Amino acid sequence: MNAKPVSESRTVMTEIVLPNDTNNLNNLFGGQLLSWMDRCAAIAAHRHCGRIVVTASVNNVSFQRPIPQGAIVTLEAQVSRTFTSSMEVFVDVFLEKDTKGKRLRANEAIYTFVAVDQLGNPIQVPPVTPETEIEKKRFDGALRRRQLALILSGKLQPEKATELKALFFPEEAKS
Amino acid sequence: MNAKPVSESRTVMTEIVLPNDTNNLNNLFGGQLLSWMDRCAAIAAHRHCGRIVVTASVNNVSFQRPIPQGAIVTLEAQVSRTFTSSMEVFVDVFLEKDTKGKRLRANEAIYTFVAVDQLGNPIQVPPVTPETEIEKKRFDGALRRRQLALILSGKLQPEKATELKALFFPEEAKS
Amino acid sequence: MNAKPVSESRTVMTEIVLPNDTNNLNNLFGGQLLSWMDRCAAIAAHRHCGRIVVTASVNNVSFQRPIPQGAIVTLEAQVSRTFTSSMEVFVDVFLEKDTKGKRLRANEAIYTFVAVDQLGNPIQVPPVTPETEIEKKRFDGALRRRQLALILSGKLQPEKATELKALFFPEEAKS
Amino acid sequence: MNAKPVSESRTVMTEIVLPNDTNNLNNLFGGQLLSWMDRCAAIAAHRHCGRIVVTASVNNVSFQRPIPQGAIVTLEAQVSRTFTSSMEVFVDVFLEKDTKGKRLRANEAIYTFVAVDQLGNPIQVPPVTPETEIEKKRFDGALRRRQLALILSGKLQPEKATELKALFFPEEAKS
Amino acid sequence: MNAKPVSESRTVMTEIVLPNDTNNLNNLFGGQLLSWMDRCAAIAAHRHCGRIVVTASVNNVSFQRPIPQGAIVTLEAQVSRTFTSSMEVFVDVFLEKDTKGKRLRANEAIYTFVAVDQLGNPIQVPPVTPETEIEKKRFDGALRRRQLALILSGKLQPEKATELKALFFPEEAKS
Amino acid sequence: MNAKPVSESRTVMTEIVLPNDTNNLNNLFGGQLLSWMDRCAAIAAHRHCGRIVVTASVNNVSFQRPIPQGAIVTLEAQVSRTFTSSMEVFVDVFLEKDTKGKRLRANEAIYTFVAVDQLGNPIQVPPVTPETEIEKKRFDGALRRRQLALILSGKLQPEKATELKALFFPEEAKS
Repeated sequence: MNAKPVSESRTVMTEIVLPNDTNNLNNLFGGQLLSWMDRCAAIAAHRHCGRIVVTASVNNVSFQRPIPQGAIVTLEAQVSRTFTSSMEVFVDVFLEKDTKGKRLRANEAIYTFVAVDQLGNPIQVPPVTPETEIEKKRFDGALRRRQLALILSGKLQPEKATELKALFFPEEAKS
Repeated sequence: MNAKPVSESRTVMTEIVLPNDTNNLNNLFGGQLLSWMDRCAAIAAHRHCGRIVVTASVNNVSFQRPIPQGAIVTLEAQVSRTFTSSMEVFVDVFLEKDTKGKRLRANEAIYTFVAVDQLGNPIQVPPVTPETEIEKKRFDGALRRRQLALILSGKLQPEKATELKALFFPEEAKS
Repeated sequence: MNAKPVSESRTVMTEIVLPNDTNNLNNLFGGQLLSWMDRCAAIAAHRHCGRIVVTASVNNVSFQRPIPQGAIVTLEAQVSRTFTSSMEVFVDVFLEKDTKGKRLRANEAIYTFVAVDQLGNPIQVPPVTPETEIEKKRFDGALRRRQLALILSGKLQPEKATELKALFFPEEAKS
Repeated sequence: MNAKPVSESRTVMTEIVLPNDTNNLNNLFGGQLLSWMDRCAAIAAHRHCGRIVVTASVNNVSFQRPIPQGAIVTLEAQVSRTFTSSMEVFVDVFLEKDTKGKRLRANEAIYTFVAVDQLGNPIQVPPVTPETEIEKKRFDGALRRRQLALILSGKLQPEKATELKALFFPEEAKS
Repeated sequence: MNAKPVSESRTVMTEIVLPNDTNNLNNLFGGQLLSWMDRCAAIAAHRHCGRIVVTASVNNVSFQRPIPQGAIVTLEAQVSRTFTSSMEVFVDVFLEKDTKGKRLRANEAIYTFVAVDQLGNPIQVPPVTPETEIEKKRFDGALRRRQLALILSGKLQPEKATELKALFFPEEAKS
Repeated sequence: MNAKPVSESRTVMTEIVLPNDTNNLNNLFGGQLLSWMDRCAAIAAHRHCGRIVVTASVNNVSFQRPIPQGAIVTLEAQVSRTFTSSMEVFVDVFLEKDTKGKRLRANEAIYTFVAVDQLGNPIQVPPVTPETEIEKKRFDGALRRRQLALILSGKLQPEKATELKALFFPEEAKS
């Protein structure tokens, strides 16, 4: 399978925060944002592989900034790396400021999708080629995140997670 | 502030998977489930502290089993541990089988919420007292998960994450 | 068919009152609550018989207390009695008070469901065994309510509704 | 307050049954229809009195005919009688047949609304003048239904429910 | 095919403006009204021909009056003229005033629908017979509107649009 | 007010066609697409002027291609020209093909928005500078469309609509 550039999977969604999307402080519910990010990330994964994709896991979602009712929210998703049948997708969330139009980063999340056939069985996806600086940095980090996920789910021995070990014991890793 | 038992925050939600909640395989969208889990977890956090709560982060969500259209989904959430103004909440998702009625575990997720006042500033929450075996196990694991989150967000040096280090590299941690 | 205890059909739903669910006084629409109660009651009926169930009638719904926007509403449904292919289901609605956590009864409703096969034809359901005081009281009342429904729909002569007559006009019924 | 004819409150709603409104037999959920009927009846009550209205109770809803996905449903509501601050509203539901266009009666329900001021306190409503045969029949029946509701809620002694008694003991009532 | 009177296709819809339907001025979104008008017009077209209908085009929608949250909106649609397989439908939108009950015209739109068979191929529809003054005026104008639409889509040479030419430039058209 | 390039208002929305968005042929409802286009166009107009915007009119919407359930729909909107307080916005709708990823044009629409202050009164907006070929073509056409709209609403004498006249009588216009 031929590799595709990250940019081919790039997906943009624009949403307005409506009254039903908000909590008692009139800010966007976290759950609504999680749902929008999943939809945006799923389309990016689908654009990369052209197959039905299902959410496999969600990681490292942190909400950095409240998003008020009436705000315009822009989501941008792209596949950062693939592993056989799974795709890691980054979602960046931006908040449009009213006065100046300069947008603020509100959120970042990492989703993992699996490509499946009509019966729901996993199938292989093409690799991805990072091109920009940020794409390369995310591509490299994906392996570390995968090792962490495998350890946490008990599928990998910590000792074998070379990349991750380097994060915890930089001294030893250097030697 | 007086500690409260975990069971006081226990929240049960029952949902039916409608056509609009499903993907092209007629299974529940991951994003819809993320949104339901957030809502259920938020009510549990609110029941524990009696305050407005906002989602701070989502961790370790993995989707183990497709949930078909028409299925009855039961979500159960409870506060597993608190840290000053934040609460870790476990959400267990069960799928009701049609024929026998025996329910299957479909999913598990961990959300973190922060209690805030009317201006959105964090305020302290009461501690939680685990009582059952599973409650105690989750209470103990919460510290490790918190260290991991702090490392990943760059707020803690990996070397200082004693509990986490012991998990990954038991031999070295002992020495 | 073996009888099942009432508790096996017990179903709990938790909902938050969102802006779109409210009228001009910012209280929950009656129609929205009717819809939630129907869904909760339908799941209880389904849990009892394991079949597709359809709403046959709704009775005695009275709204005792306005439910404000943002409130957490808990619904509890259980099968109170069965008649061949129909099931009477009680739904109790509770309102969670913010300050103290003590919940208030907001509403009570009685729905009747019929179990049907894939073609929509009625099929028999197992009987139900009441165990607690309240379950027994509701079980006994079900026969009276059924007579009343049959009279109102013209399917039963008032003179033959012995139980009901005794309720309304105890003196004359004795004679 | 001047009486108004029944026809002034007449309200027509047309809805299409969408996939999310249906159960596993692809027929309209009872709860969705209950919600539509409440909304239609509330507008009729509002048209009669020009005030905010809240649902007080629902009575005698029976589902006579399954309504399939894609069907066009017409609801017609009108105030049948008033009592101080409350209004009884009849809702008739019709199903449009595809082939010939002749519509079928699918359902009938009776709702009671109360007119309230901005603080939620009950306020008086104008009486209603029935004009057609069916309007007169429903106007007359309203008193009987009200006595029954009052007895069931314990607010009226059965012996004083003259109209209702006549229903159960036609012989004595004649004498 | 026998002609049908305009009145046979007449369709009434009543909607309440909910919080999610409104913009930052708490008035109804134009897009929400466009969607309601399309649904109402589609039912009118379906009532006229008894077939599946699909929206072909939308013309001349102008929003004359803001519609506030909580308002009751009445839509009335009817087929004004047919051309082989297409039907022009007028939708009138009224706003119900709270105090007096006198309704205000808020909007008017013209939609065109095409009747199709199960495969989506256009099929012929019966002609329509206008009866009232306004029905006749709309019937006559339909030809002119059709010429304009054909010109704008490049399917008709402006020089051949006799009716339209006469409308815009009566002096020159005569010569 | 300084002119802004067309590209600054460019807005992209991505939507998936869910079951509730479809008609009996399982294709997207026209009304749902009208609503999405309005929302996308409103954000583009808001991005251009930084003000609250309200839909003033909709023109020339034609549906060229059915959009099936499950399809990914991309909408792109940008301001094509401004007139004092009003903005003409073009919306292009694309349909993503599953197999090859090459997208198809499904629809095009022109909306007009007015910028208003907090009281709903119109306020002036900056002019727009077209840069690409297509932007220039749409900018030029906007004047003709405006003349047509003014004539149709009776606010402009046809004789004074120079641009439009040239469309109908190309010979005379040349001389």
